[in-house]
Amino acid sequence: MSVIRMSELFVRTLRQDPADAEASSHRWLTRAGYIRRVAPGVYSWLPLGLRVLAKVEAIIRQEMEAIGAQEVRFPALLPREPYEATGRWSDYGPNLFRLQDRKGGDYLLGPTHEEMFTLLVKDLYSSYKDLPLTLYQIQTKYRDEARPRAGILRGREFIMKDSYSFDLDQAGLRDSYQRHRQAYVRIFDRLGFDYVVVQAMSGAMGGSASEEFLVVSEAGEDSFVRSPGGYAANVEAVRVPPAEAVDASQVPPASAILTPGAATIDALVEVCQRVAPRSDRPWDGADTLKNVVFQVTEPDGRRQPLVIGLPGDREVDLKRLEAALAPAEATAFDEADFAAHPELVKGYIGPVRLTETGPVAVLGQTGTARVRYLVDPRVGPGSVWASGANQADQHLVDLVAGRDFEPDGLIDVAEVKAGDPAPDGSGPLSLARGVEMGHIFQLGRKYAEALGLKVLDRDGKLATVTMGSYGIGVSRAVAMVAEATCDEHGLAWPRELAPYDVVIVLAGKEEAMRQAAQALADQLSEAGLEVVLDDRAVSPGVKFADSELIGFPTSVVVGRSLADGSVEIRDRASGQRQSVRLEQAVGSIVEAVRG
Amino acid sequence: MSVIRMSELFVRTLRQDPADAEASSHRWLTRAGYIRRVAPGVYSWLPLGLRVLAKVEAIIRQEMEAIGAQEVRFPALLPREPYEATGRWSDYGPNLFRLQDRKGGDYLLGPTHEEMFTLLVKDLYSSYKDLPLTLYQIQTKYRDEARPRAGILRGREFIMKDSYSFDLDQAGLRDSYQRHRQAYVRIFDRLGFDYVVVQAMSGAMGGSASEEFLVVSEAGEDSFVRSPGGYAANVEAVRVPPAEAVDASQVPPASAILTPGAATIDALVEVCQRVAPRSDRPWDGADTLKNVVFQVTEPDGRRQPLVIGLPGDREVDLKRLEAALAPAEATAFDEADFAAHPELVKGYIGPVRLTETGPVAVLGQTGTARVRYLVDPRVGPGSVWASGANQADQHLVDLVAGRDFEPDGLIDVAEVKAGDPAPDGSGPLSLARGVEMGHIFQLGRKYAEALGLKVLDRDGKLATVTMGSYGIGVSRAVAMVAEATCDEHGLAWPRELAPYDVVIVLAGKEEAMRQAAQALADQLSEAGLEVVLDDRAVSPGVKFADSELIGFPTSVVVGRSLADGSVEIRDRASGQRQSVRLEQAVGSIVEAVRG
Repeated sequence: MSVIRMSELFVRTLRQDPADAEASSHRWLTRAGYIRRVAPGVYSWLPLGLRVLAKVEAIIRQEMEAIGAQEVRFPALLPREPYEATGRWSDYGPNLFRLQDRKGGDYLLGPTHEEMFTLLVKDLYSSYKDLPLTLYQIQTKYRDEARPRAGILRGREFIMKDSYSFDLDQAGLRDSYQRHRQAYVRIFDRLGFDYVVVQAMSGAMGGSASEEFLVVSEAGEDSFVRSPGGYAANVEAVRVPPAEAVDASQVPPASAILTPGAATIDALVEVCQRVAPRSDRPWDGADTLKNVVFQVTEPDGRRQPLVIGLPGDREVDLKRLEAALAPAEATAFDEADFAAHPELVKGYIGPVRLTETGPVAVLGQTGTARVRYLVDPRVGPGSVWASGANQADQHLVDLVAGRDFEPDGLIDVAEVKAGDPAPDGSGPLSLARGVEMGHIFQLGRKYAEALGLKVLDRDGKLATVTMGSYGIGVSRAVAMVAEATCDEHGLAWPRELAPYDVVIVLAGKEEAMRQAAQALADQLSEAGLEVVLDDRAVSPGVKFADSELIGFPTSVVVGRSLADGSVEIRDRASGQRQSVRLEQAVGSIVEAVRG
Repeated sequence: MSVIRMSELFVRTLRQDPADAEASSHRWLTRAGYIRRVAPGVYSWLPLGLRVLAKVEAIIRQEMEAIGAQEVRFPALLPREPYEATGRWSDYGPNLFRLQDRKGGDYLLGPTHEEMFTLLVKDLYSSYKDLPLTLYQIQTKYRDEARPRAGILRGREFIMKDSYSFDLDQAGLRDSYQRHRQAYVRIFDRLGFDYVVVQAMSGAMGGSASEEFLVVSEAGEDSFVRSPGGYAANVEAVRVPPAEAVDASQVPPASAILTPGAATIDALVEVCQRVAPRSDRPWDGADTLKNVVFQVTEPDGRRQPLVIGLPGDREVDLKRLEAALAPAEATAFDEADFAAHPELVKGYIGPVRLTETGPVAVLGQTGTARVRYLVDPRVGPGSVWASGANQADQHLVDLVAGRDFEPDGLIDVAEVKAGDPAPDGSGPLSLARGVEMGHIFQLGRKYAEALGLKVLDRDGKLATVTMGSYGIGVSRAVAMVAEATCDEHGLAWPRELAPYDVVIVLAGKEEAMRQAAQALADQLSEAGLEVVLDDRAVSPGVKFADSELIGFPTSVVVGRSLADGSVEIRDRASGQRQSVRLEQAVGSIVEAVRG
C-alpha cells in the first residue's frame, strides 16, 4: 500500500476529553480520532479506528476458521416470530429495539441470533451425518442498554462475533464447547489481554454450563472471585452451598424484645447484646436475620412483593439479584408499596409474629395472605436468629429456621465477600473486577426444542439437536486493548493491532529533511510496512504529541540530526529512543516492527 | 488456506425454485446455497455468498482507495434530528424504518448517510486547507421498500458503498465527481458488467447533476434511452424541450362538437375526422389534448387534484410522474374523487368550457375554484388542439394554447417513445431496460447549508462546503453478476469473483481415486488456489450438477480415466472439457485459473 500523508489522513486530535468520558479508552479513542459519538451508545468508526477493528476481526476469523467454523452473515433486522417462539421477544424487555415495517409487521434489531441460526440449520440440514457443525458471523448487533457507557465499551450498536455449534449429543456439545474455549484462549492471548475464565450465569440465554472471559480491569462492571485452588466465577454465578441442618432442640422458644429505634443491624446487635446477651460470645451482625423487601415485576407486568432473608452482616447484591430473577425485574420497595402492605413494618420485618399460641407466619408458605419469602442458603434448618417482629420497636430472638418459620425456598443473592470460602472448598475467595469480553454457553436443546430442530439419528429416529453459543465483543475488544495499553500520553497499541506500523515525523522545514523523510517512508512501504508520513505544517512538538496520542508503535524522527546523517527511532510502548545512521534506518525499523 | 471438503461445507443445493423467484439470480443464488430468505427483502449470506460478497467489496475498496477516498463506518441506527434538519425524516415517507428507544427518542435505520457525513466533517474540519476530502463506507443500509423483490436485487436490508466528497467550490466538486465517475467505470469494468452511464434525476437526494450506472438487463426496473449521437438518460431524466410559440392568429374560434360515447382518444379521432375534417391531413391522436387527473398527496398529508394535459397519442409515465412530484405522491383519481369534483367530467375533461362570451377556464390559473393544470412541453403557445368540453358527450376543436387556456406550467412526464428525438439533437432515441448499480450526485450545498458545514476560505471568510455523494449497491452487484453470467444450469462466476477457484470432483469410490483427488487438491491449494474437494458419498452425476449449479469456474474430474493416468478439466463458462495427464494437471489448472 502507499504511504499515507498525515496532512491528508482524516483525523483531528482533540485537546478536550469528551464530556461523558469515564474510561481511559473512551477518552483516548475519541481524542486521538478513532471513534466519534453519534448518539448515546452509538458511534462511528473513523479511519484509524476502522483499521484497528479490521485487525481484531482478522485475528478472530483466523482462530474461528482454525476450529472449522464457517462464516455466514445474518441480517440485523429480524422478524418477531422466532423470538416469540423462544420467549425472548418479551424476556428481553426494554433491552430490545423493536420496530414495525410499513405493513405493521413486527421486527427487532438482533441482540444475538440463536433463533436464526437454529432455523437456518433446520432449514438445510436433516441428518446426523451433517453434524457436528459450527457457524459464526461477525456482525452488528443492537441492545437498548439502560446505561450505555464508556464509548464503544458498552454500546447500543456494537460488533460481535457470535458462533453456534450443533451436535447430536452431549458429548459432541462438550467437544464443540472445548474447541471454542481453546480458540478463545488463543484469541485473547493474541489480543494481549490479562484475562480470567470464570463460571458464569446463563441469564436470558438459557442453557446449562457457561463461562465468561473477563479482562481484568478496575473499569470493569463485572465482579468476579478467585480462590488459591483455582476456583473462578463471576459473582453472579457463585453458588453458596445450602447450610446443613443443625440440632435446635435445646433452643428456648422465640421471645420478643423491645428494640425502640433499632431499625438498623448495628443498633439491633447493640440492643441484643444489652437485653439478651449470648452465653457463648458477643452478638454479631451475622446472628441477625435481615429481611429486605423488593417489588418484583414479571415481563408480562404482574407485580408482587418478595422478601429476602439473609444474615445481617450481608447486603443483597443487586446484580446477583437481577441475574437470579431474570427476566423478572426487582425494584426497591417504596413508601406507597409499604402503605399497601401494612403487614410489612419497615425496619421490623421478620418471618413471624408472636401470638399467645406461638409464632404465626407473616412471610413464607405463600398463601393468599402471606408474602413470598426466600432466604439465603446460610439460613439452614435449625439455625437460630434475631429478627424483626413485624411490630414497630420489637424484635424476636431465639427464632429457629424450620421450627418457627418456613421459607418458600432459597435465593443466593447475598453479596460475596473477600475471604468467603470458595464453594468447591479450594480456599478463601479474593474479589476483582473485569470486563466481559467473551461468553461461551452450552445451550443444550432449549432453542432446538422451541423451534423444532431435529435430525435423523443413526437409527433413523428424529433426535433434537443440542447447541452451544459463543460470543466475543469485537468493538469492545478494540476498547479494551486501548484501555489495557494506554498511558497518560494516549494510546500505545500492540504491534499486531496498530492502525499503522510506523510514523515518519518530519521535524523540520529543510528540503533535505523532506526528501529524506519521503525516501524513508517509501522504502519502508516497499518493505511491506504500513507507513504514515507526518508532513503537516505544524511544530515538531505537536507532531510528537500527536504521534504519542495516536499510539503509533514506532516513530522515526527526521530532524536536525539528519545533518550528522542520523535519525531517531522511538518506541511508543517502552519510551526508548535510539539514534541510527540513515543508511541503516530501514533495516533497524523493519527489525523493530517485525520483532 | 486449507482445502474445503464439500462434505463439510455448509451448503445444500435445492431442487426447487424459491416460491417468489422472478429473477434468475434470485433463483440460482437460493438454489445453490448462497443466500437464504429471513423476511421479505431481508436475506442471510451463507458461506458461498459471503465469499463472493467479500470479493466484490475488495474490488470496490481498491478502486476507492485509488482515488484517495478514506474508509470510515457509520452506525445504521441514527438519531432523527439531522434528518429532520434536511427534511428527509418526512420526505422519505414510508420508505424509512423508524423506531424509538427505551426513552422514547426517535431513531431511524439509515437509508443513506449524507447528513451524518456532513456533520462529521463539520465536527472535525474547519479550513479550506482540509479540503478536498473524500470519505466512504461499505455498510448495511435499510429501506422499507413497498415492493422488495428478486432476492438481494432489491432488498430492505442491503449493503451499499456510499462515499461523499467535500470541496470548497464548484470546480473542486466537478473534479471529485469526475474522479468518482472514473473509479466507477473501473469497478464496473472489473465486475464484468454491460452497463451504461445515463443522466438521472436526483430525487429525494437533492442536488444538481447526477448520473446513474445502469447494468443493461431485461430484468431491470429502470428504463433508459440512448441516441446514436451518444445521449443517454434514465427515462425519468429525459427533458423534452418546450415547444416554441407558433402563430395561431388564423385559427378560428374554438367550437364544440358532439362526441357521444367518444371517451377514448381513438374514438375522438374518429369523430373529429367525420364531423370536423382537417384541411391539411387526417386527424391523429397527437392532435388531441388528453387530460389525465391525479390525486396528489404531500408528505404532510395535504391532498389536491392535478390535471395533466398531454398529446393524446401519449400516456403519463407513472415513474416519470413519481420522480417529478417527489416527495409528493400521485394516485389515480377514483370515483369518490370525481364525485367531489363535479367540474371534472370523466372522459370529457378539458381546459375550458365554452360559454356565450367565449371559453371560460375550468383548469389552470389556479384560484379558489380552478383545478391545478400542468401540460406537456409539447403543448406550446399557439398550438391547436381538440380536447374535452367538460360536458358529457362534447369536445372542443380549434382550442389554442395561450389564447383559449393558460396552464399553470409545464410538467414533463409523458412516456418517452422509441424514435422520439434526443433532447440534444443527437438523433432518434432507442429504449432499453437496466438495473441501477451506481448513482453519482453533485449534491452542491443542500446538506452543508441545512447543517451548517462551513470552513474558512483563503480570505478568512466562512464558506459553505459543496458536496457530492456516490453510491454503489454492493449486495445488488453480487446479484447482478450472477444474473449476467448464469445459464440454464446455474451460476457461472467470473474467476475474480467466484467463491472458490476450482472444485475437484471425486467421481468414483476407489482408494486410488480418493488419494489422487486429495493430492491434487493439496497441490493446488499450495499453489495458492482456493480449492473445494467434493468428497461426498453421492453419485458423480449429482456432483457434476452441483458443481455447475454452484458455478465453480473450473472443475477437475478424478474418475475412471485415472486408470489411464489422466483427469478431466471442465471450464464452467465455456463448457469446454479437456483431458490432461495427471502429472501435468496442476500446471494446467493453475494456468486455466490464472488465465
